[in-house]
Amino acid sequence: MDNKEFVKDITNMDEDFAQWYTDIILKAELVDYAPVKGFMVIRPYGYALWENIQKILDAKFKQTGHKNAYFPLLIPESMLNKEKEHVEGFAPEVAWVTHGGENELAERLCVRPTSETIICTMYSKWIKSHRDLPLLINQWANVVRWEKTTRPFLRTSEFLWQEGHTLHSTAAEAKDETLKMHKIYADFCKNYLAIPVIMGRKSEKEKFAGAEETYTIEALMHDGKALQSGTSHYFGNNFAKAFNIKFQNKEGKEEFAYQTSWGMSTRIIGGIIMTHGDNRGLKLPPNIAPTQVVIVPIAQHKDGVLDKVEELKNILSVKYRVDTDIRDEYSPGYKFNYWELRGVPIRIEMGPKDIENGECILFRRDILQKEVIKIADIDSKIEETLANIQENMYKMAVKNVEDHTYVAQNLEEYLEIFNEKQGYVKIMWCGKQECEDKIKELTSSTIRCIPFEQENLSEKCAICGKMPNHMVYTARQY
Amino acid sequence: MDNKEFVKDITNMDEDFAQWYTDIILKAELVDYAPVKGFMVIRPYGYALWENIQKILDAKFKQTGHKNAYFPLLIPESMLNKEKEHVEGFAPEVAWVTHGGENELAERLCVRPTSETIICTMYSKWIKSHRDLPLLINQWANVVRWEKTTRPFLRTSEFLWQEGHTLHSTAAEAKDETLKMHKIYADFCKNYLAIPVIMGRKSEKEKFAGAEETYTIEALMHDGKALQSGTSHYFGNNFAKAFNIKFQNKEGKEEFAYQTSWGMSTRIIGGIIMTHGDNRGLKLPPNIAPTQVVIVPIAQHKDGVLDKVEELKNILSVKYRVDTDIRDEYSPGYKFNYWELRGVPIRIEMGPKDIENGECILFRRDILQKEVIKIADIDSKIEETLANIQENMYKMAVKNVEDHTYVAQNLEEYLEIFNEKQGYVKIMWCGKQECEDKIKELTSSTIRCIPFEQENLSEKCAICGKMPNHMVYTARQY
Repeated sequence: MDNKEFVKDITNMDEDFAQWYTDIILKAELVDYAPVKGFMVIRPYGYALWENIQKILDAKFKQTGHKNAYFPLLIPESMLNKEKEHVEGFAPEVAWVTHGGENELAERLCVRPTSETIICTMYSKWIKSHRDLPLLINQWANVVRWEKTTRPFLRTSEFLWQEGHTLHSTAAEAKDETLKMHKIYADFCKNYLAIPVIMGRKSEKEKFAGAEETYTIEALMHDGKALQSGTSHYFGNNFAKAFNIKFQNKEGKEEFAYQTSWGMSTRIIGGIIMTHGDNRGLKLPPNIAPTQVVIVPIAQHKDGVLDKVEELKNILSVKYRVDTDIRDEYSPGYKFNYWELRGVPIRIEMGPKDIENGECILFRRDILQKEVIKIADIDSKIEETLANIQENMYKMAVKNVEDHTYVAQNLEEYLEIFNEKQGYVKIMWCGKQECEDKIKELTSSTIRCIPFEQENLSEKCAICGKMPNHMVYTARQY
Repeated sequence: MDNKEFVKDITNMDEDFAQWYTDIILKAELVDYAPVKGFMVIRPYGYALWENIQKILDAKFKQTGHKNAYFPLLIPESMLNKEKEHVEGFAPEVAWVTHGGENELAERLCVRPTSETIICTMYSKWIKSHRDLPLLINQWANVVRWEKTTRPFLRTSEFLWQEGHTLHSTAAEAKDETLKMHKIYADFCKNYLAIPVIMGRKSEKEKFAGAEETYTIEALMHDGKALQSGTSHYFGNNFAKAFNIKFQNKEGKEEFAYQTSWGMSTRIIGGIIMTHGDNRGLKLPPNIAPTQVVIVPIAQHKDGVLDKVEELKNILSVKYRVDTDIRDEYSPGYKFNYWELRGVPIRIEMGPKDIENGECILFRRDILQKEVIKIADIDSKIEETLANIQENMYKMAVKNVEDHTYVAQNLEEYLEIFNEKQGYVKIMWCGKQECEDKIKELTSSTIRCIPFEQENLSEKCAICGKMPNHMVYTARQY
C-alpha cells in the first residue's frame, strides 16, 4: 500500500465532512461501533486521549479544592421525579432497569443520565452546619441517555464524563464557583486542546433542566457547525428545596444551600477531531497527544539503525511521550501515513546516512514540513517544535472561527447566510423565545450562547426588529 | 467530646467484628449507604484510597504492556448467552434494562456483571493475524451484580474494578500472562497494602464461570475469615470458540486465540480495613494512605503557631501527602481521635513551646507511640518512619496469619478447630468435590485455594481418608 492509496481511504472532508469524520475515528482506531445501537467502544488510542484529558482536568479540579467520589449508577424513579423541570428534561431519554437477578423490582431504577438527584439525596444527609460548606465533589463516571440519532463521541447513548456537584452557603459563592469552573473549561480547551471557545450563558430555552443559569463553552468545528463543549450550571436552591438540603448558618438559622454542577465528556474528543483534523487524518495538539513524537527508522535492517532509534527513544522518553515503529512488515511510507492518520505531532525519520552525518529528519504534522536537524540538538529542537505546533494549531483554529463568523442585521441577511454557509452568525436578540424558535424553524440554527463579550451590532433584534437585549452567537450545532 | 467518648462510638472489634467494621466505614466517612439496597456511595476519603490503588496498579499494567480501553455498560441477552458456563454463573445475578426512553426494547440488555462477552465480540472483529497478538487491554469500570446479602466494599450490587482481557497466539503465552498478573496482584498487596496473601489456584468448583483455571490471592482478615482479593483466569480457547476469535498463524493457518482475564475491585478496600484496623479505627499503610502525615497545631491561637504549621506543610508536601487540621472549633484531643480514626500513619503535634525548642512530637498510628523530634531532622525522620510503619504493618499482618493458621489431619480435628476458631485450616485433599461439599455443609468453610507452596501434611485426605492430591487452605470467607 503506497502513500496515496492509504490517504485515498479517507473521504475528502470538503466533499463529505460526516463521512470524513467516520473514516477518521474508525481508521485511526479511536473507537468502534458496539453491538447495541448508539453505544461505542472506546479503543486504546481513543481512550489514551481521554486519559490525558482526565489527568489534566482532574489536577485542575483538585487544585481548586474539589475531591472525587462515586455515587451509584442506578437511581429510583421516585427520586428522579423529585425536581419537576429536571425529570421533564431527562425522563424521556433514560434506560430503565426493571429486573434484578430473577425478580421484578418493586420500583424501577433509571440508569443515571446525570447524578443531581442521587447526589442531592446524599448531600441532604451529610450537610448540617455552615462548617460543612462548601462541599466540593466531582465524579468520573459513565452515564446513559437513550438517544435517537447517535455518532461516536458526539452523541452516544452511553458516554464517559466528569460531573462536579458543589454546595455553598451563599448564592454569591455558588455563582462564583459556576464561573470558576466555566473558566477552567475554557482555559483547558485553549491551552491543552488548542480549541478556541466562546464563553457565555445559555438562553432560558437552552439551559439545563432545573438550572437557574447554564454557562457554556462553544467551539466551532472545521465545517462551521458548533459543538457545546462543557457546561456549568448554577441551581440557586431549586434542588436544595426539592431534596431538603439545609444547613444551620452562622446565626444558628436553617437555610437552604446553594448549588452548582458542571461537566465535560468524551464528546470533547469529537471536538478535537473536527477542529484540527485534515484529509490525512487526525491532527493532535502536542499537549494532549498520547504520542508526541514517533521515530520511524529508514532501512532498519542496516547495522546500527535500530540501536540508534532505541537510544534516541530512551533519551527523549524522559521528557516526551515517544513511540517507535520498528515493524518489519511495513515500509517507511506506510508507517508515515499510519502515524499521520493518528495525528502524531512530530515524526523523526532516521536512516544509516542520517546517522553517519549525525542528523535526522523532523516532520511536523501540523504544516506537513520536513527539516533536517542535528541529533545533538534534538532535545531542545523537539521542545521548541512541540510548543510551536501547539501555538500554531491554536492560531489556525482561531482563524477558522474568524473565517466562519458572520453578522446578520435582519432576518433576510440571516437566511441568506445560512442558505449558503455554516458558521457563527452574530445577531442582536430581543430575548424572546418566539424569535429563538423562529430561526430554528427556518434554518435549524440555534442560539449557542449569550457571550460575556457583548458587541452592539444594531438597535434592533435581527428577527423581530424590536429593541434588542443581547448580542448572541447562533449556529447549527452537533 | 473528649478522647474516650470518641473512641466509645466504635464497637470493640473483639466483641462484634461486623459492627466494628460498619462503625469504621461510616465514621471514617469512607462510604455511605445508597438509597437502593445493596448499593454504596464511595465518599471522598474512601475514593481517595481507590484512586491511589488505581494509580499504582495502572502503572504496573502499563509497564507490562497493557493499554486501557472502554467497552459498553449494556450487553444484549443473546450475547451473554453465548458461553454456556458463563451465562449459568452470571445470569441469576444481573440487572436487566428492558426500556430505553419511552419504548420497550426488542431484546433486553444486561448491565455488565463482567465484560468477557462484549469484549470477545469486539476482539473477534479486531483480530486477524498473529501480528495483532498479543492484545493486552484493561478496563476501569463499574459492574453490577444483584447480590442478596451485601456489605459496603466487601459485597455490593455495584462495585468499581479493573478487568484485564488479553488474547494470545499460544496457550503457553496466555498461561504466562495469567500468572504474571496473579503475581502483580500479590506483590501489590504485599508492597503497598501491607497485606500478606496466599497465592494459588481455585478448585474446579470455585473457579470463574467459563475459565479453565482461576488463580486467586487470598488474604486473612483480623477476625480469621478469608477474603478473595484478586483473581486471574486462564480461559484456554473456550470463549474464542464461542465468539469465533480466530487469527492466521505464522504458517498461514487459522487458529482460535488463547485468552485471559483478571480483576481487582473496590472489595480490596474492605481488605485493608479488616487486615489493619483496630479499636481506634482505620490504620492505613503509608504507601496507600491518602494522607500520610497530618500536622495538628497545639494552642493554634498563639503567635506564630499556624505560620510554622503552614511552613512545615509546604516543606513536607514536596515528598509526602500532607494535611493540616487548623479547625478552630475543635480541641487538639478531638483532632487526634479524628485522624486516628481515619488511620493516618503519622501525626505531627506542634505548639508554641515545641517551636521555641525547635522540636515537635511525632505520633505513630501503628504502635500508638509518641516521640519528640527535632524540626531540623523532620524530613529524614518522616521518610524513615513511614518506611518503618509500612514494614511493621506487614509484619503484624503476617503474624496474624501465622497465629490463625491451623492444620487438621482428619475431619474430627477439622470440626474441632472450626467449632472454636476462625482462620486458615490447612488440610490434605483428595481432589473430589464430594469432600469439598462436605466441609462446606458441616462448617460453612470452603477451599480457598490450592497454594503453589505445597506441604505434605499426611498421606490421607483429611475428609475421606483416601489418597490426597493436594494440600489446600480452607477458611470461612467474606
